Amino acid sequence: MTSHHFEPTTYYISFGSHPPALRIASGDTVATSSIDASGINARGEQVAGSPNPETGPFYVEGAEPGDILQVHLDYLYPNREIGYSSTLLAPHVVDPSYVSLLPERKRVEWRIQPDSNTAVLITPLPGLPDFYLPLSPMLGCLGVAPPDGQAISSATSGPYGGNMDYYGCTAGTSFYFPVFVPGALLHLGDGHAVQGDGEVVGTGIEISFDVRFTVHLLKGKQIHWPRGENADFIFTLGNARPLDQALQHATTEMLVWLQEDYGLDTYAASTLLGMCVQYDLGNIYDPAYTMVCRLSKRWLGSS
Amino acid sequence: MTSHHFEPTTYYISFGSHPPALRIASGDTVATSSIDASGINARGEQVAGSPNPETGPFYVEGAEPGDILQVHLDYLYPNREIGYSSTLLAPHVVDPSYVSLLPERKRVEWRIQPDSNTAVLITPLPGLPDFYLPLSPMLGCLGVAPPDGQAISSATSGPYGGNMDYYGCTAGTSFYFPVFVPGALLHLGDGHAVQGDGEVVGTGIEISFDVRFTVHLLKGKQIHWPRGENADFIFTLGNARPLDQALQHATTEMLVWLQEDYGLDTYAASTLLGMCVQYDLGNIYDPAYTMVCRLSKRWLGSS
Amino acid sequence: MTSHHFEPTTYYISFGSHPPALRIASGDTVATSSIDASGINARGEQVAGSPNPETGPFYVEGAEPGDILQVHLDYLYPNREIGYSSTLLAPHVVDPSYVSLLPERKRVEWRIQPDSNTAVLITPLPGLPDFYLPLSPMLGCLGVAPPDGQAISSATSGPYGGNMDYYGCTAGTSFYFPVFVPGALLHLGDGHAVQGDGEVVGTGIEISFDVRFTVHLLKGKQIHWPRGENADFIFTLGNARPLDQALQHATTEMLVWLQEDYGLDTYAASTLLGMCVQYDLGNIYDPAYTMVCRLSKRWLGSS
Amino acid sequence: MTSHHFEPTTYYISFGSHPPALRIASGDTVATSSIDASGINARGEQVAGSPNPETGPFYVEGAEPGDILQVHLDYLYPNREIGYSSTLLAPHVVDPSYVSLLPERKRVEWRIQPDSNTAVLITPLPGLPDFYLPLSPMLGCLGVAPPDGQAISSATSGPYGGNMDYYGCTAGTSFYFPVFVPGALLHLGDGHAVQGDGEVVGTGIEISFDVRFTVHLLKGKQIHWPRGENADFIFTLGNARPLDQALQHATTEMLVWLQEDYGLDTYAASTLLGMCVQYDLGNIYDPAYTMVCRLSKRWLGSS
Repeated sequence: MTSHHFEPTTYYISFGSHPPALRIASGDTVATSSIDASGINARGEQVAGSPNPETGPFYVEGAEPGDILQVHLDYLYPNREIGYSSTLLAPHVVDPSYVSLLPERKRVEWRIQPDSNTAVLITPLPGLPDFYLPLSPMLGCLGVAPPDGQAISSATSGPYGGNMDYYGCTAGTSFYFPVFVPGALLHLGDGHAVQGDGEVVGTGIEISFDVRFTVHLLKGKQIHWPRGENADFIFTLGNARPLDQALQHATTEMLVWLQEDYGLDTYAASTLLGMCVQYDLGNIYDPAYTMVCRLSKRWLGSS
Repeated sequence: MTSHHFEPTTYYISFGSHPPALRIASGDTVATSSIDASGINARGEQVAGSPNPETGPFYVEGAEPGDILQVHLDYLYPNREIGYSSTLLAPHVVDPSYVSLLPERKRVEWRIQPDSNTAVLITPLPGLPDFYLPLSPMLGCLGVAPPDGQAISSATSGPYGGNMDYYGCTAGTSFYFPVFVPGALLHLGDGHAVQGDGEVVGTGIEISFDVRFTVHLLKGKQIHWPRGENADFIFTLGNARPLDQALQHATTEMLVWLQEDYGLDTYAASTLLGMCVQYDLGNIYDPAYTMVCRLSKRWLGSS
Repeated sequence: MTSHHFEPTTYYISFGSHPPALRIASGDTVATSSIDASGINARGEQVAGSPNPETGPFYVEGAEPGDILQVHLDYLYPNREIGYSSTLLAPHVVDPSYVSLLPERKRVEWRIQPDSNTAVLITPLPGLPDFYLPLSPMLGCLGVAPPDGQAISSATSGPYGGNMDYYGCTAGTSFYFPVFVPGALLHLGDGHAVQGDGEVVGTGIEISFDVRFTVHLLKGKQIHWPRGENADFIFTLGNARPLDQALQHATTEMLVWLQEDYGLDTYAASTLLGMCVQYDLGNIYDPAYTMVCRLSKRWLGSS
Repeated sequence: MTSHHFEPTTYYISFGSHPPALRIASGDTVATSSIDASGINARGEQVAGSPNPETGPFYVEGAEPGDILQVHLDYLYPNREIGYSSTLLAPHVVDPSYVSLLPERKRVEWRIQPDSNTAVLITPLPGLPDFYLPLSPMLGCLGVAPPDGQAISSATSGPYGGNMDYYGCTAGTSFYFPVFVPGALLHLGDGHAVQGDGEVVGTGIEISFDVRFTVHLLKGKQIHWPRGENADFIFTLGNARPLDQALQHATTEMLVWLQEDYGLDTYAASTLLGMCVQYDLGNIYDPAYTMVCRLSKRWLGSS
């Protein structure tokens, strides 16, 4: 149960079997930082390329393919004053016939105000005077190394996690990833101070973060897609295109979970999902889209 | 501002230019009822075929193509004791490789308890003993007649509304539909006592309803997809396959709405959506899927 | 085995249970005509609205739901001199990021030259001087009335056929449609003198046609999607979005056909498709896309 | 213009920046071999893992990001007697409601007969007695290393090529790939003696191959997706899900090609595609699907 403080110096723009940045044990906590999606750190220095340079990977001692890595996000917060966001819906989230009406994409800036826990829009936009939003810090990227020696761009996602851009990837949440390589190799990055569903403009409020997380290894238990949990909900994440397929992955993973761990047969699990499931749209911007299948713990017994 | 009481005797299984069941004026309120998706009424009698037999159509005097019909749902409540639901995820919402593991579909029954505002599962299912859910009555079907003399099955949906199976179609909510034919021809049906996102088992708790609604005509204002509003949110609905396309329709409609009615230019509207939008999954069961683009009114000025 | 000559006077812009234009018997042949997609006839007169006004419907005596209607296209040929086509790829067939580079859509005209069986481009386009194409006359629309009292726009398609825009819908080909209503109610229209795969600009060379066809009724044999046959191939057509789903429908219909009529079990039918199937893209322009699953008769025994 | 003979000893199951197997120059020809998709070589020995172990990568001297690598397939032929194929349509190419009717997947074997240039089915299947097919040898996998240090499973494909499973990847065909890394790093593998469109059973007739190819470097010319050419056609390949998106990539690449190299403006290029384009389905089995946009050279001037 060691507490590590880790200052990253190298960043990777893919999820892969890169040389471990730090070796940790199950139960350990790591305080570290992430730089923004364009490679700028807390001091405004360009220290890596884009997209989404990742902190890590963290090698978890004893992790083997077929295990699960639990990652609890203890703390996430912007560690500089100014973040930025894009100002234009992605052409693939509007009707094809509307695309030619969109103007040129540009950036706006936001000031992070920790006192009020808000982000204030500092680039003037018509119709949004004195505009600010409550902070809701989240990690756009979180995941482990994929199997078969792959190294996959941090622009996208898969069964190993990655750039899922799920607004529910917040402090107080635990994620569960299938382990594909020895050490699991945890990567994290792409902090957003605020982001709506789907990351439909291609960014949240992009900014560097201070991050603290704790890992636990669950030996010999297999899952096929990332899972998660917070105080109120359990959830599963599917990453694919189109959204329909992302939803199929997340729903199947939840169906299996309910049957294996909660004592429900297929009928009971289906009935529960049919009447109570909630779906969140992670991202509809990246090469793989993300759908989240979420269920309130109030419907689940004390198993 | 007449209050009508209308007892339906004929039901249609398509949204179309059927003979009007009742002629009403802008501002009028209608108290009526709907039968369940399989055609069974409040007294348990089979009075129509499936799928989703519709009450109406209601002819709104003065409505012309190019207008908007506003429908406020004043009241919705089950009007009989027993509802039913399906017990199996649809094969197209799980991974194709998982489909062959699904058992035979069957029905379960629920007892509606108005005193506690709950639905109690009365068919035993392993893992769900003494299971009940809070009621959240909603209409699966709501819409007007489509253009060009079409009559389209009440199993599906389109720009005219239809079988959208959106759990947000509840009392206290207003919907706005484009008018395609003289009189608009409002249809409603397919009441669900409870339903999760997506209607992933192909049913909610299906039951007959008492319904009261009020219409208003908004002359000479064009929209392309249904819109809606409740105390806290405005929203738009896109109906298509795949989900990606349904989302494009809903998002484009919202983008236009923010620009036309809320004083935002494309950059401001996109920024607001990028940081604050929420998406709801209406249905992923019917021939056309439904995605809802929703925005909190707290971000919108007093326009 | 009567030969009818039918001069249409009314055209419908939906596939539906419209009043029959002519009553015919199984084995009958009908010589008739179709107007172009915009409602212009052989003499250049605007005689109907758009899209795709249909000739018919033809009521086939004795046709009942659960039967199959075979339609053999005996003859198709443009019956006027000038046709037109659009000049721009549809925004949904190019990358979303490319859409804003597309200029305004416009029309070009073509002269039909029966002597050489060619269409000559008569509107100058840079890079296409003296450009002509061999004629390959086909019907964009062919189908029967859908079930449940529906009337569905002739812009789209479904299990009943409709606007499939398949370049293989040529003289010498037979189509098989499921019968959903008494009389089957055959519709046809939307002649193209030439068209590439997918109708990717939204038109072929649009023109009015002389058409001759022969119908046969196959009693008591059910199919779920249109099938077809010519001298060399059997094929099935699926109509849906996205293409993936259209392909699923066409492939499943072919798999069933091979098992029911050609003495193959699932393994043999799958093996044959795996090694020998060809897929054609009907349309990727209309609300429902069309994929065609095609198999050479050389691989099929004499069953 | 050296002719190399290269006997592979190492195989990779990803397209990536692996250590070069051989360094060659523009204009060089390489005679080599590939093992089958399951890692079995010409002598029936298991020499690598699955899926689709690749021969190479071949480092082309002087190739830099922003160049094009042309690969001409000079010769392809099975180099052992027995190949195998799967016998069952993939669950995602049939209707979801049909999936549960599919039996267990199994393998059948085929004997390659060079004298008659045929493959003879040697595992008995009901309805296919004495069944044989003409050989049409093709490579399922062909491509270069992806950018950004990625290594991507040889089960899938992208802008760099990969597992496209296009039946048109035959001797006599040239492919053009964008170069993303120094040396381009050409990979090849996954030979099929015969395969239908789409690889709908998940295999062709899988077998090891003798392969001869010739490379040419085209300096300083950028493309975004693979292109190809044979005696009669030019074509482009898009790799993505769903098919709609794969088609968008291929069509956009062709539109750009026609404008940049063939003297057509957008209207002329669109018109040509609209009336003459053909689409081939590469694969609808792998994680990314492949659509091919193909145009006959007879419509293109002598540019």
